Amino acid sequence: MKEFKEVGRPLKRVDAFDKVTGRAKYCYDLLPTDHLVAKMVLATVGNGRVVSIDTSEAEEIPGVVGVYTCFDPDLPQQPFGTAGHPWSCDPGHQDIQDRNILTQRVRQYGDVVAAVVAEDTVAADRAVRAVKVEYEEYPLELTRFEAVDRPEDFPPLHEARPNNIIAHVDNRTEVQGGYETVEQILDDPQWHRTHIEVKTPRQSQAHIELCLSFAYGEGDRIVVVSSTQLPHICRRIVAQALGRPWGDIRVIKPYIGGGFGNKQDILYEPLNAWLCEKVGGRCVLLELTREEVFAYTRSRQPKECHIDAAWDDDMNLKARSLEGWSNQGSYAAHGHALMANTANSFRQEYSAKELAHHGVATTFYSNETCAGAMRAYGVPEGNWAAEVLMSDIAYDMGWDGAEFRLNNFMELGYKDPFWPGPLCCYSRGIDECVAKGKELIGWDEKRAAYKDQTGPVRRGVGMALFSYKTSVAGLSLETSNVRMHLAQDGSIMLQMGATEIGQGADTVFSQMAAETVGVPTETVHIVSQQDTDVTPYDSGAYASRQTYVAGTACRKVAEELREKILDYAAFLNPKRQGPFDMRDGVIYDVAGNEVTTIGEVSIQSYYHPTNAKQIEAQDGINVQENTFAMGACFVDLTVDIPMAKVTVNDVVEVHDSGVIINPKTAEQQVHGGIAQSVGMALSEELLTNPKDGSIRNNNLLDYKIPTMMDLPDLTADFVETYDPTGPYGNKALGECPCIPAAPAVRDAILNATGVKFYEAPMTPQRLFEGFKKEGLI
Amino acid sequence: MKEFKEVGRPLKRVDAFDKVTGRAKYCYDLLPTDHLVAKMVLATVGNGRVVSIDTSEAEEIPGVVGVYTCFDPDLPQQPFGTAGHPWSCDPGHQDIQDRNILTQRVRQYGDVVAAVVAEDTVAADRAVRAVKVEYEEYPLELTRFEAVDRPEDFPPLHEARPNNIIAHVDNRTEVQGGYETVEQILDDPQWHRTHIEVKTPRQSQAHIELCLSFAYGEGDRIVVVSSTQLPHICRRIVAQALGRPWGDIRVIKPYIGGGFGNKQDILYEPLNAWLCEKVGGRCVLLELTREEVFAYTRSRQPKECHIDAAWDDDMNLKARSLEGWSNQGSYAAHGHALMANTANSFRQEYSAKELAHHGVATTFYSNETCAGAMRAYGVPEGNWAAEVLMSDIAYDMGWDGAEFRLNNFMELGYKDPFWPGPLCCYSRGIDECVAKGKELIGWDEKRAAYKDQTGPVRRGVGMALFSYKTSVAGLSLETSNVRMHLAQDGSIMLQMGATEIGQGADTVFSQMAAETVGVPTETVHIVSQQDTDVTPYDSGAYASRQTYVAGTACRKVAEELREKILDYAAFLNPKRQGPFDMRDGVIYDVAGNEVTTIGEVSIQSYYHPTNAKQIEAQDGINVQENTFAMGACFVDLTVDIPMAKVTVNDVVEVHDSGVIINPKTAEQQVHGGIAQSVGMALSEELLTNPKDGSIRNNNLLDYKIPTMMDLPDLTADFVETYDPTGPYGNKALGECPCIPAAPAVRDAILNATGVKFYEAPMTPQRLFEGFKKEGLI
Repeated sequence: MKEFKEVGRPLKRVDAFDKVTGRAKYCYDLLPTDHLVAKMVLATVGNGRVVSIDTSEAEEIPGVVGVYTCFDPDLPQQPFGTAGHPWSCDPGHQDIQDRNILTQRVRQYGDVVAAVVAEDTVAADRAVRAVKVEYEEYPLELTRFEAVDRPEDFPPLHEARPNNIIAHVDNRTEVQGGYETVEQILDDPQWHRTHIEVKTPRQSQAHIELCLSFAYGEGDRIVVVSSTQLPHICRRIVAQALGRPWGDIRVIKPYIGGGFGNKQDILYEPLNAWLCEKVGGRCVLLELTREEVFAYTRSRQPKECHIDAAWDDDMNLKARSLEGWSNQGSYAAHGHALMANTANSFRQEYSAKELAHHGVATTFYSNETCAGAMRAYGVPEGNWAAEVLMSDIAYDMGWDGAEFRLNNFMELGYKDPFWPGPLCCYSRGIDECVAKGKELIGWDEKRAAYKDQTGPVRRGVGMALFSYKTSVAGLSLETSNVRMHLAQDGSIMLQMGATEIGQGADTVFSQMAAETVGVPTETVHIVSQQDTDVTPYDSGAYASRQTYVAGTACRKVAEELREKILDYAAFLNPKRQGPFDMRDGVIYDVAGNEVTTIGEVSIQSYYHPTNAKQIEAQDGINVQENTFAMGACFVDLTVDIPMAKVTVNDVVEVHDSGVIINPKTAEQQVHGGIAQSVGMALSEELLTNPKDGSIRNNNLLDYKIPTMMDLPDLTADFVETYDPTGPYGNKALGECPCIPAAPAVRDAILNATGVKFYEAPMTPQRLFEGFKKEGLI
Repeated sequence: MKEFKEVGRPLKRVDAFDKVTGRAKYCYDLLPTDHLVAKMVLATVGNGRVVSIDTSEAEEIPGVVGVYTCFDPDLPQQPFGTAGHPWSCDPGHQDIQDRNILTQRVRQYGDVVAAVVAEDTVAADRAVRAVKVEYEEYPLELTRFEAVDRPEDFPPLHEARPNNIIAHVDNRTEVQGGYETVEQILDDPQWHRTHIEVKTPRQSQAHIELCLSFAYGEGDRIVVVSSTQLPHICRRIVAQALGRPWGDIRVIKPYIGGGFGNKQDILYEPLNAWLCEKVGGRCVLLELTREEVFAYTRSRQPKECHIDAAWDDDMNLKARSLEGWSNQGSYAAHGHALMANTANSFRQEYSAKELAHHGVATTFYSNETCAGAMRAYGVPEGNWAAEVLMSDIAYDMGWDGAEFRLNNFMELGYKDPFWPGPLCCYSRGIDECVAKGKELIGWDEKRAAYKDQTGPVRRGVGMALFSYKTSVAGLSLETSNVRMHLAQDGSIMLQMGATEIGQGADTVFSQMAAETVGVPTETVHIVSQQDTDVTPYDSGAYASRQTYVAGTACRKVAEELREKILDYAAFLNPKRQGPFDMRDGVIYDVAGNEVTTIGEVSIQSYYHPTNAKQIEAQDGINVQENTFAMGACFVDLTVDIPMAKVTVNDVVEVHDSGVIINPKTAEQQVHGGIAQSVGMALSEELLTNPKDGSIRNNNLLDYKIPTMMDLPDLTADFVETYDPTGPYGNKALGECPCIPAAPAVRDAILNATGVKFYEAPMTPQRLFEGFKKEGLI
């Protein structure tokens, strides 16, 4: 492993001080005082069509600037896709474009049929209430059975897909061991076999900052300031929605208060920009309420998976099959990519011993609220499926779950057979992760101590593993551009196209730049705000791609900047013998004697009478390789059976994310991820009203995320492998932590009570029903 | 001359729409709502020392956050220079550093001795009034005689220069014609000779936007948002004043509402940044009042020049000498550079026939308010001296002033003997300017018609020429960096280090970039706002340097970008034969057949599966050459002698600024400059109270700038030479228009009345006295 000096330092976040003091500038902090306020008129039926809209009363309300409906003659007609994916010039690789800025066809409760712009929020809210919309209603298609097995004469949700199937994919691995099909293995009575059916919830990203943007005219162009994870993609989608050249749109992304994938869709920025056009370029704010964010933005796809498996007496999986359905809701958004991730991750993780594998995955439209990306993007659902299976088998066979899992876990050198480009297990620290986790939680002691418990309150210990690919390289475009320049004092100005969305990206990029240039991180100043007119192109924050992909670009540009600095030092010191080296900002000649400093080089480079030129570098990369992060989670908990109440006592999560750039921020990532995964395990689920498709618990009181009060002190630890494809030996970390805690909780409840739960979250209601069914209550 | 397509288009300004609709973002538009307000406690004596400051009462006022005095132990002690000049690593070439953030030594009325930070303006103003300052007063040294011929025991204004002399320069050209000294020529009775003494006023830049900035903490750093002409220099001076690494300071420059040189000094930004530090990084606004801007920022240096001249019967000047004094006031600021410009321009303009020239120039400290840069930077004063002399001679000799002037005007190939680097007349259109101007004003007809007038109301016609160097290349560092990148739609994103300060720079840079890349200007999007963390380095807007110096950088970078675009087009079209060419965004092969478009190249460059990389270019230049712009002004006016009132009937100004990048914006520049020069001629002068050195007319009511009502329709025209050193054949234009109208007015008054005025402005009071003395009243 390489020796690093700045990489690996447990530095305080570069934005820590500004964020705790409230100085950090978020979207709202940049809002001009003289802005107008937009509010949306949302459909109050779950399926139908707008027949007419009467705006006359609304337009009379003092302060109303305009009311704009889905019948507006200026309304751009071309549909657009909202998914935050890189564009592709290949039409076959483009996202489905099925959304309009305002819609006459109502596909979900809350579709936007009109919008009001007013001088203030009060007038806008009054006007929204005064708009009269008449609908023609169609039968609701909420469930898989309603949406897919639909009568042919139902009005189609989307003309292009009258059967509501967005995608249906069937993947079979090559069959080994003399069988012809996976079914033969799964039917072979010489193996142990099982069939289970699991469900995962519509989880909400529940970020603290709401979804908001504001737009204003600048010359003939439109500036959109948005709380988005991906400003460059936001520019593209706004332009596509408006039917304008992309360069006509400028997007600025300030600090953002969490996104977790919800801000990886571009939902309301096109409406915001269009309203700005309609009012002649005046600044228009479009901020969703908390209730609107819960119900009408995005959420984790609710999924159902049916699993068959066969295994032998020696802890070897022989075959597995998974049939999964994803209820995508009203629009395609990320399309089938999420469900593909679910099926892929299920297949990849325990691929070591299988003779065959069969995965079938279907994503379908319905009148449910539209799903989208959420942290780990389909993998928690695949992991729930994989780990619930492993949990059941180990429990039924009386095996140590850790040993059983490790025996089947993806091997070093594993290559995914269905990934279009290289996706390979280039580094593998899972054994060490499990060993460390077992020791930290006291696995063997607790397994022994919790045996044969009786009584209403019981302890349990459980575990789960996971694997997670790093970025989408190989499947989709992974490109990133970075720019650096030297300031007069030798400090480095760093501009990343990649975005800080609360995860700590700015801090680790600063460390990477410092490491490679050869200066202390304290002298690297990163520009956190992205501005598409200025910032180098990068597709943004998703897929745990940034430290890997943008990190590779950062290293490349830092190397170029370093070379230019050393070249200028050589120009200034022609008598000293090179090649020069720089460490901690001091420049040495070939003999190791100090020549000059970066500060001296930089001030000369600015003010040299005949050779003054700002030293800077910009470059970009295409990442073509992809590797797996992995890890293990261990949970200790107490189940109060009659109260149907679970108390989490301890969580230990150990990650192999390769080299850790910053142990402190990495630990923070893990803490947050565990909380989200525990939420998925025990409480988090958006509930759809079957009468109209609306969301019932659209607020932070009725939608329960774990708070500090609900969680014990969390233990995060790391096994540092050196991945040969990561720029600094690093692999994905951003999303991984929200994967394995949910099935580990489930495993621990099984350990405590002997009751098998298949549907997350395991709410008190479901726990009660499960315990009652098994005779514990 | 080259054929241009985008250069030369009379385009509307790129910021026109935003500025007339009020959407353009100036400093105040970016101010966060939760800012604090700073107000300054200003000295009420003109010379002295602060003995004590009692802040106790001020600190008790509700809303006051803090009162900070010149005795504050945290106050940085190192003095700093305020002039907006590029830094030099050579200490002998650095500006004088003689100012402190707050001062105990009071050198002028209005020196800042303390500052208040409060929650709002009312509290801040109350607190300022409640601060009690005790002074020890010293004798006032306002005039040249008081300040230079001072008693030795007077307390020095600045310890480093106890005699108050900032600089004294004596330049003698090589003597020709058999003489040994210029004095011999000036004493030779075979020549006509004269001695005159002229004065020019303390003119105010009178920009509409006040001087303001706000500062806030960002991490450990300080961000200063300022209405400055030179953000990069602002960063440097703030850092130097605070004694911090330059990279610790980030300066953002939005649109600014005029500067005219006053915002070429960094006056209060250091105080603003220090107050921000004192309040823990909270945002602090420091906005000067109109009265403070007039009295305590900068103004044109008041100057006095004594001139001797000799000439022959054939319209040939034989020798001239000038002795000039500049009353710089309390601090050195731009030092001697302004007075040097006065003496240099006096020498250069009519250099053709002289046998010898002698210039002596002195700049001295006094207790007057501090002078600084104002549009044309000393040259209007030198031009007043030169043209008043020419006016007198032509009048006395009965010559045609145009003919006499042209006979002596700087010749093609003239090289300034005292300029450290090349400064040469590389192109010369003065004859055509005069011919065009004469025709437009009707020179010959009016000269004839206005002969032998009598009566109280008379018409006059007058003229003046000028020459003006382009940039400060050769004397000081002229460097500029520019960045461009291609957006996905093939539009060009342009980032200039050079700044838009209302003069139209953004528009002409956009045209230059378009011209060289080979696209329409409409597809170039310039980032107007500079941010020192992001924007390429450039020293800013002054010295009419930007289209020449930054324009050269713009062309170079556009060439590089164009090459990269054509290279990528070649990569995409390997079978087509190059070299490729691009015109209007269409790319052609060597045979002239269309291959592709810039739009297709750019989208591929972003999303190519294996070769995606943002196409961009950044580069910088050092300009080493320097050339002269020139021109002629003609004025027709009416003098009402008993009313001592001048009405300007017509002004025609014809410029040779080389190739005109944009005729429309060029014309606007000329209109504004004429107005300022007419103001200098007739009304603009800040008046010092001899009792304490305060400014008497510190407001727009008592300080008279010409408005639309005071001016006729102005005629601007151009003679387009092609200067070989300008990037597009262009030369200086920004400052030139405010030079020649003042002496042309003077010449016209002489033509109308026969009365010679030597002091500008020729206010009604001075006109009355002059007419009375000559017996006209």
